Amino acid sequence: MEFDLVVVGAGSGGTEAAALARARGLKVALVELSEESLGGVCLNRGCVPSKFTRERARLLRALRRERVLSCEPSVNAEKLYEERRKVVEELKRALRRSLKGVELVFGRGVVKGPNEVFVEGAERVLRAKRLLVAVGSRPAVPFKPPEGLLDEESVWELKEVPSSVVVVGGGVAGTELAFAFRALGAEVTLVEKERKLLPGALFPESGKALLERALLNEGVKVIKGAGLKRVVKEGSLYRCELEDGTAVRAERVVLAVGRRPNADLAGLDELGLTDERGFVKVDEYCETPLKGLYACGDVTSPLMLAHKAFYEARVALERAFGEGRLRRRELSVPRAVYSAVELASVGLTPELARKKGLTVKAGRASFRFNAKALIEGENEGFLELLLDRSGRLLGFSAVGPSAGELVHLALPLLGREVKRLADEPFAHPSLSEAFTQAVREALR
Amino acid sequence: MEFDLVVVGAGSGGTEAAALARARGLKVALVELSEESLGGVCLNRGCVPSKFTRERARLLRALRRERVLSCEPSVNAEKLYEERRKVVEELKRALRRSLKGVELVFGRGVVKGPNEVFVEGAERVLRAKRLLVAVGSRPAVPFKPPEGLLDEESVWELKEVPSSVVVVGGGVAGTELAFAFRALGAEVTLVEKERKLLPGALFPESGKALLERALLNEGVKVIKGAGLKRVVKEGSLYRCELEDGTAVRAERVVLAVGRRPNADLAGLDELGLTDERGFVKVDEYCETPLKGLYACGDVTSPLMLAHKAFYEARVALERAFGEGRLRRRELSVPRAVYSAVELASVGLTPELARKKGLTVKAGRASFRFNAKALIEGENEGFLELLLDRSGRLLGFSAVGPSAGELVHLALPLLGREVKRLADEPFAHPSLSEAFTQAVREALR
Repeated sequence: MEFDLVVVGAGSGGTEAAALARARGLKVALVELSEESLGGVCLNRGCVPSKFTRERARLLRALRRERVLSCEPSVNAEKLYEERRKVVEELKRALRRSLKGVELVFGRGVVKGPNEVFVEGAERVLRAKRLLVAVGSRPAVPFKPPEGLLDEESVWELKEVPSSVVVVGGGVAGTELAFAFRALGAEVTLVEKERKLLPGALFPESGKALLERALLNEGVKVIKGAGLKRVVKEGSLYRCELEDGTAVRAERVVLAVGRRPNADLAGLDELGLTDERGFVKVDEYCETPLKGLYACGDVTSPLMLAHKAFYEARVALERAFGEGRLRRRELSVPRAVYSAVELASVGLTPELARKKGLTVKAGRASFRFNAKALIEGENEGFLELLLDRSGRLLGFSAVGPSAGELVHLALPLLGREVKRLADEPFAHPSLSEAFTQAVREALR
Repeated sequence: MEFDLVVVGAGSGGTEAAALARARGLKVALVELSEESLGGVCLNRGCVPSKFTRERARLLRALRRERVLSCEPSVNAEKLYEERRKVVEELKRALRRSLKGVELVFGRGVVKGPNEVFVEGAERVLRAKRLLVAVGSRPAVPFKPPEGLLDEESVWELKEVPSSVVVVGGGVAGTELAFAFRALGAEVTLVEKERKLLPGALFPESGKALLERALLNEGVKVIKGAGLKRVVKEGSLYRCELEDGTAVRAERVVLAVGRRPNADLAGLDELGLTDERGFVKVDEYCETPLKGLYACGDVTSPLMLAHKAFYEARVALERAFGEGRLRRRELSVPRAVYSAVELASVGLTPELARKKGLTVKAGRASFRFNAKALIEGENEGFLELLLDRSGRLLGFSAVGPSAGELVHLALPLLGREVKRLADEPFAHPSLSEAFTQAVREALR
């Protein structure tokens, strides 16, 4: 064999796997479309650009709420584009360094069998003991869009803030984009075909309600229960026709209606390795039915998160070249939304527990009188944990300030007794001290 | 007995103990000097006002560094004072509600014996099965100061930002004040008599070096190795004469040279319960040598933190009225500094480990290429953990963005094996993911 491992796709999962395998002393090839797309969607056209933009939106909102400092901030949209690119480029340079010793092959990798990848463009066949497919996903587009329509990836190519935007899709990407555009100064309409934002059970209903209120408070128009039928260009505007017969006009339209896995582009459907939705079938070790062929990241399930890809890369590597002591547990992957409020969760939510018919004890601590939250001027929200009868942690949700960080307090405790936490000396003032309060509430 | 518990001092520890005891159904009296001082130093003249001010300072610095948004912020010093008071008052109202059912007695409580407190002012004797002394501490003043000199408490009465300030004392309070005043626009000189800032071993040296650099970058003048000899009023300025013969002039001088315990004010020295530094002697259950008399908070040791007081209140209560399953472990209380950078630590630092002659394995993850830190524009600093030979966590330090929150990732893991953490799916991008990177580094 030419290589120990060939990884197809140099996004979050693929680069993690390649670097890890290299650190084990293995001979590794990493296939990616082009130099430019190295790092994948998260780095180039996903979470990093999105969180960069959101951080400015958050700062703008903090300034609007601030009563001690006064200033009239202006947004330099070109700088927003440039500085965002700079962060991406800096991270990309670090990523390249982490891939030292990995052979990069540019072109489209197509899996031909358990040990063989053909790279279109490079016109090269790579053979390896093990293969890992980490080819990610692409935005789902429900119809042929008129020219100039944006999706959740191409939106980051904008160099100006439009005066008005329709964001189609009230999921994670859509609620994040709606808040960001609104805070930057656009008139924003958010359209969701379901009857609520963030459909599904991965975030607590009470958090979603708070998010919706916060979006409305920011001045976002929210239309629920009305899918998009079609989009028509009308002079300098787009007209979005909704299924309920109404229409919304805006200078820009961003489709954020979901993503589909790229397994087909890597030839996995032809090998019969995909399910009816196009995801690669994998077991708890991230191995496909084709022995020796592994998959990680967006191609394995609808939970399309960079750190799910990192995690699965580790699981697959540990199985392929280690002792196989890691197993994929999707519920233990934290989820997070960075919109007008932050939401994050890990393990079960109250809604997931109900679906599973589990009896849980809940403990909630509000940020309402949390000193740090009051000091930061952002004291809406709460932490909530769910315990089983024996006091073991089944799930955790954070809604409000720093939710995306606070969720990590729960991560190492999943499945463990948390009683001890009730008496730990959490620092005061801190947001984290709400965690120990929530534990006490749950143990009452 | 009239009461089950009499608590002397309604600061952090006293109010926590009174509320907890009440929740157990006990009859409780709580003695405090006045309605106004309810909540103690942390709430009224310590951490809460300080963190409120620091949050504005942090925002000002973020705006100065910001390249996408531009604005010329101005500081309204009167609003700073007012809004700070509002947060204090809101927290105080919540505190009052938590004390429902507790009898408040105003006056100076003096302990007369294991079951008796005399309240001067109220001229009342309170008898109880158990007593808890939680009378806190006061600023130490090395000499009779000239009129108008400020200390780390009275500084919060200022309603303007002075043009120039000398902060005497480079400990936690001093470094925090120096940064805050500087960011608000004052010329600041920070004077520390030791050869380094943050003397002692509770924070890692590498973090202190970063803090000092950050203060210098902000334009704070730092003078080390020169104690204050005396302060003289000179026209509208104060002249601070230092031990090295030099002098610094400023419009305002703030003494932040340490604190001394108030045990003497509660009569504990007369009962022979204090050590040579004035601290109350307590065992691992926070009980004094006088059976039935407990103490918590600033009176027990130089680690004067609100959450140490909360924690000791729980330990004492659990011993006095419960099963006594909690024990006071001072090293497991997190320490934090909110200055030009944030520093936080829990358990051992490298310096404490060295002092104890312990061999440790260290693992460090820098924020330099942490995506979230880069996005927030604050990517200096690191997380570092120390493990023993078996991979159990002995200590943790955080330096940089959100250090005061991130320290809580380590808190529940102290004394435990952390190997599992190396493979947990920490969210990306997040500051917290540096924790799992540090674990991996330590396990290498």
